[in-house]
Amino acid sequence: MSSGAGGFAAFGGAPLLPRTRPAGNQPDWPRTEKAIRGIFSRHYFANNGPLVRSLDRALAEEMQVAHAVCVTNETVAMTVLATALEVRGEVVMPGLAFPALAEGMQWAGLAPVFCDVDPATHTITAGLAAPRVGSRTAAIAGAHLWSRPCDPEALQVLAAQCKLPLVFDATQAAGSMIRGDCIGSFGKGQAFSLHASGVLNGGEGGFVTTNDDRLADRLRTIRNFRSSETFAPSSLRTNGKMSEMQAALALLSLEDLPRNIAANRERYAAYAENIEGIRGISLLPCAEGSNFQYIVLDVDARTAGIGRDVLGKVLRAENVLGPGTTVPRAAPGDFPVAQSISSRLLPLPNGSLFGKDEIAGICELVRRAAIHAEEVTARIGPNP
Amino acid sequence: MSSGAGGFAAFGGAPLLPRTRPAGNQPDWPRTEKAIRGIFSRHYFANNGPLVRSLDRALAEEMQVAHAVCVTNETVAMTVLATALEVRGEVVMPGLAFPALAEGMQWAGLAPVFCDVDPATHTITAGLAAPRVGSRTAAIAGAHLWSRPCDPEALQVLAAQCKLPLVFDATQAAGSMIRGDCIGSFGKGQAFSLHASGVLNGGEGGFVTTNDDRLADRLRTIRNFRSSETFAPSSLRTNGKMSEMQAALALLSLEDLPRNIAANRERYAAYAENIEGIRGISLLPCAEGSNFQYIVLDVDARTAGIGRDVLGKVLRAENVLGPGTTVPRAAPGDFPVAQSISSRLLPLPNGSLFGKDEIAGICELVRRAAIHAEEVTARIGPNP
Repeated sequence: MSSGAGGFAAFGGAPLLPRTRPAGNQPDWPRTEKAIRGIFSRHYFANNGPLVRSLDRALAEEMQVAHAVCVTNETVAMTVLATALEVRGEVVMPGLAFPALAEGMQWAGLAPVFCDVDPATHTITAGLAAPRVGSRTAAIAGAHLWSRPCDPEALQVLAAQCKLPLVFDATQAAGSMIRGDCIGSFGKGQAFSLHASGVLNGGEGGFVTTNDDRLADRLRTIRNFRSSETFAPSSLRTNGKMSEMQAALALLSLEDLPRNIAANRERYAAYAENIEGIRGISLLPCAEGSNFQYIVLDVDARTAGIGRDVLGKVLRAENVLGPGTTVPRAAPGDFPVAQSISSRLLPLPNGSLFGKDEIAGICELVRRAAIHAEEVTARIGPNP
Repeated sequence: MSSGAGGFAAFGGAPLLPRTRPAGNQPDWPRTEKAIRGIFSRHYFANNGPLVRSLDRALAEEMQVAHAVCVTNETVAMTVLATALEVRGEVVMPGLAFPALAEGMQWAGLAPVFCDVDPATHTITAGLAAPRVGSRTAAIAGAHLWSRPCDPEALQVLAAQCKLPLVFDATQAAGSMIRGDCIGSFGKGQAFSLHASGVLNGGEGGFVTTNDDRLADRLRTIRNFRSSETFAPSSLRTNGKMSEMQAALALLSLEDLPRNIAANRERYAAYAENIEGIRGISLLPCAEGSNFQYIVLDVDARTAGIGRDVLGKVLRAENVLGPGTTVPRAAPGDFPVAQSISSRLLPLPNGSLFGKDEIAGICELVRRAAIHAEEVTARIGPNP
């Protein structure tokens, strides 16, 4: 082993972490135990139970919208929202997003039509979306990638001009604000995630926000096949019911949300401080009002001398990243900005299991990998 | 109030139960607490965790099949199974079933074509299905309504003759056997429920069984949008991932299954004993090998003098039935047997919260309603 790159776990050294640690923030056990005991004493586990009804109300209040409709997970949220639009045809969406957006649309029978994204914000803009709107367009969808809002006001103007419904994939944006407004209050509806890895979570889960009473009735109808819960006609319904166990965790997580965002913000600052000054490698800035859930490295391979994929392999061997770390993929086609971004970004872990020491250790690994860029790249190979 | 019907809660009397009680069998709290503490100590809540992987294996063993693939709920199980068939066109299915069957098929892009059902078993038969098979038929689906198997061997012969995939809606049949074989071992795949109301449950949940390795790979791919869990190509994927909390409950429920079936069987016997001798009202027989989950009244309105809907309203007022009690609905069209059956049947509650006293009380209510049939019907009205 060379003295330079010899310390890395990828080359036989001891890994930084003995095993991978899940991201996310989870409520403490005493409050959780009490909540789950309550479920057991009521014997009420599913079917729009009392905790789910509380969560619907609490999320609507927190997100400053008229309605929040909790469902099983975020893909179901997007599917139910897209179905409730009751339109057929194409939907214009960003060519860089997580899978739930395009998949939810397709389950609802809509055909994705992609546009490129803005190089600064990584999201769709009205200017990029407008040329893709045509006679078959039935809806426009934005995505708040990395919790960073995709200029919702300008997209609202475009949607109004084109008389099209506008929805948002807000998977990563629970608790995020934009210029003092909750991110969930824009457009016709927004689909959020309550996955375990998020700052606000129910272990797993999702919800849709809307200020449209009629849409809310359709969402509540579609999420439940039981005829006793019919609020508006719908041609197709499903089982998107959140369970009481999910709702119990999400209600506790909602209590913790300001604390969790503040702690994420501190972790972000620690990452930023430790990453500073590495040539060609930087941290994506978090907008003011962000939930600070995503800590994302931007790796400029040419300047850094090490590529995103090589660095990812180094960090996986250190158990810093899990084997399934998901990065957004650019849509196939001519979307140069989306493709460039998707090859550069590497999300780093965040959440209560990552303290200052772990963060310093992770950043030190990145720094050492950059210092030994040539040797590391040669030993791992250019296409890891 | 008249002396005859005055005692009923529907007419102002005290209800039999102070409030409705959920059906189903749930594991005890000490084992549950231990299992959930384990999840908290691992910080692993979602994404095909260790408990989900154990449950996949344990269910395959219990159901005597090569593969069990756990998902969020039964509608998702049916949707994922139908999608994994990779066929397009029509699917022949019984005109009497719970909503998940037709809905799952429709989400997968298949068009339901209904046939009538057998008056004795309430299920599809090969003889009833055959005339509906045509050039556009892409699959055949059976449903084990009330846990009663729909002659799977004869349907297998038909499917083989027509070279069509055969799947089953086994929502209600977890743990049921047919002539010594597990019900889940027939056809190309079967979709089961793990809903809280069942004898085997994860609070909420579902799973698919199959002996087809290639289909299992597609099922596991479709249930998870994460590219790290790709086992076979699939055009459309979703988030059907079961959570660790669901899997924890289901694993405990699986330990309890023989005990739960035995207890359900005793409750069934208690209902049968107490219902006996009421003119025009009888209990649907449970087949040998059944999980005894469903206790269903067959109300012959002409002989009993009281209709199913009137009796249902009486029992709802007594808090015996919840407001959302689901009865299978006959498909629209010319399906006289399905329509007749769907107007006669009333499922009664089963599960650990219903002891011999409650069962005797429920049956006594049915008996008194039948005795005072004319007065009860007049006071409630013919179309409740």
